[in-house]
Amino acid sequence: MKKSYLLTPGPTPLPPQVCEAMARPIIHHRTPQFQLILKEVTEGLKYVFQTKNDVFVFVSSGTGAMEAAVANLLSPGDAVITVEGGKFGERWTQICQAYGINTEVIKVQWGEAVAPHKIEEKLNNARRIKAVFTTLCETSTGAVNDIAAIGKAVKDTNAVLVVDAISGLGAIDLETDAWFCDVVVSGSQKGLMLPPGLGFISVSQKAWKLIESSRCPRYYFDLKAAKKAWESTDTPFTPAITLIIALCESLKMIKQDGLENVFLRHKKMADATRLVVKALGLELFAPTCASDVVTAIKVPQGIDGEKLVKTMRDTYGVTIAGGQAELKGKVFRIAHIGFIEESDIIACISCLEKVLHQMGYKFELGQGVKAAEEAFLKG
Amino acid sequence: MKKSYLLTPGPTPLPPQVCEAMARPIIHHRTPQFQLILKEVTEGLKYVFQTKNDVFVFVSSGTGAMEAAVANLLSPGDAVITVEGGKFGERWTQICQAYGINTEVIKVQWGEAVAPHKIEEKLNNARRIKAVFTTLCETSTGAVNDIAAIGKAVKDTNAVLVVDAISGLGAIDLETDAWFCDVVVSGSQKGLMLPPGLGFISVSQKAWKLIESSRCPRYYFDLKAAKKAWESTDTPFTPAITLIIALCESLKMIKQDGLENVFLRHKKMADATRLVVKALGLELFAPTCASDVVTAIKVPQGIDGEKLVKTMRDTYGVTIAGGQAELKGKVFRIAHIGFIEESDIIACISCLEKVLHQMGYKFELGQGVKAAEEAFLKG
Repeated sequence: MKKSYLLTPGPTPLPPQVCEAMARPIIHHRTPQFQLILKEVTEGLKYVFQTKNDVFVFVSSGTGAMEAAVANLLSPGDAVITVEGGKFGERWTQICQAYGINTEVIKVQWGEAVAPHKIEEKLNNARRIKAVFTTLCETSTGAVNDIAAIGKAVKDTNAVLVVDAISGLGAIDLETDAWFCDVVVSGSQKGLMLPPGLGFISVSQKAWKLIESSRCPRYYFDLKAAKKAWESTDTPFTPAITLIIALCESLKMIKQDGLENVFLRHKKMADATRLVVKALGLELFAPTCASDVVTAIKVPQGIDGEKLVKTMRDTYGVTIAGGQAELKGKVFRIAHIGFIEESDIIACISCLEKVLHQMGYKFELGQGVKAAEEAFLKG
Repeated sequence: MKKSYLLTPGPTPLPPQVCEAMARPIIHHRTPQFQLILKEVTEGLKYVFQTKNDVFVFVSSGTGAMEAAVANLLSPGDAVITVEGGKFGERWTQICQAYGINTEVIKVQWGEAVAPHKIEEKLNNARRIKAVFTTLCETSTGAVNDIAAIGKAVKDTNAVLVVDAISGLGAIDLETDAWFCDVVVSGSQKGLMLPPGLGFISVSQKAWKLIESSRCPRYYFDLKAAKKAWESTDTPFTPAITLIIALCESLKMIKQDGLENVFLRHKKMADATRLVVKALGLELFAPTCASDVVTAIKVPQGIDGEKLVKTMRDTYGVTIAGGQAELKGKVFRIAHIGFIEESDIIACISCLEKVLHQMGYKFELGQGVKAAEEAFLKG
């Protein structure tokens, strides 16, 4: 007998309402019954995206929606800016390069946010830039970028702003319209509290103009086909029916709480976790721009980071994330995304203390949980 | 209170084991726990594909896996053969054209199978053909192609044989290796008895050679990235965890029954349905090559085909499929795919009789159900 806790930045824990919806007998997608759900889901997504733009759902992981952005907006030989502050920023560059797009890369020290003026400067120096590819929360480092400021820098240029909000959407504020985000992509297994399987994309009028002239090949991810189908409340290809029905449930939960309260809950969990880090004598990986999405913590000297994560998971049932790519073994990450509550954080921190203690890390047992309790008591 | 019956060629009814698996708490995909499942699923898929080739799973609908075949095998300007005997054969042409591939189209009357010698002739006349794109069961017409014969025609040429087995896999025989199918694509919501959301693809050695030289852009559907990840029992991007866990359950069911018995069950349902058609004075749409996957039936004169399907679904809870594209209103389709048993066919035929009677079609009530019972008694 072992209870499981999931505090990874995707997948995130599933609410019982979602599990129940997933277990229902399936219905056909080309029916008025499913159309009602697709309509409700589209409206719900617009609420979470904070947009009046078109929002479409793909059967794909978040990366599929990222590729859709590249393949629909651009033509081979086009020039774009990509911001690389971690593994997922680098993914924008990789996708663009796969499509023969020229990428002007802004390299950011991992764990730091991009300085918006750097994007502004590059846009001024190279006026033929067609798109700026950025990341809301860089899941690999826990850093959050200032998308509002980046939006201001991009909005009056010819370039469109594309935001990877895969781990951030529904967890922290992203005002798609007010911040001039032309294309926002996300996935289902994060703030939307679903299993992986759905990719989302929002498309502004400015982006549609660019799409008109794009010559990159695409079929499955073609946005014009998606728009045409959506206009008759349909999808171009068989949708992931079960996941969309479950999405309808999780969107209801988000609406009921209200986005603002959802963001506050994430902030509360993240604030508490950051205080825990301090109380245990640990160090944040992204201290100047730590997101409320996922907290990356440096593995203390002398401790085997991968063993820490493995022991918490396999011995105690608490799954957190290790480091990715160049951060493998150097950080561990505790996510606050979606259906995560105070009790999950307490269970996680208590387990972390136990394993750190067993591994010989010197600290006063209980100080982490105490810091979290204090934070939660303050509200 | 209304019981629902689903006899459409995707989605197909979900077994209780699958529903139960979908409702479980989610686990993380980069864990030994999930790796065990991915391994078991890959072996199970090889059993169903009847292949020793690599088999990969995408988060996508079947169309995504079709696009993966085109984008990974070919380069712009390459020449291929596509066989168009219905909406899904046409899809091969559309995808190829989106990627700048030159398509030599073999047009087949809808409702008929392609004559394998036509493919042979075209291959002889145009030796630079790199791939032949075919369909196992053309879901839009119910016709089944002779893939074994096509395989013989293609195997000694430079071209690879690509088979869309989306609605046929796990329903009717497809011997990937013995029939020399280089690439076979499928989806989850058909014979594999899952919700839509997974795309499958198998890749032969001959196909891998072509992939090496392909210059079509791709990232999300890149097969080399899939192969590299699979070699360490991983996926390049977040997999549809829940669906893969459910797939593990449905593959167990198929293995337990044995593929041969699964095919026999489909044949039994289809045979019975074809006898019903005769007994009710109706006509098959594809009489010479009717598949055991889905039976397309001509809408009798004077009957509104769309109303027939709608009434069965909305008044009586029995969902069958209408006609697609040029067959809209002209046929209705009863599927036999996956978790469908005698009782489902009886419920469907009884409902069909009721609605046909109400709509003024002249026949002796009960003759359809009688024909099905007779067929089932004969075994």
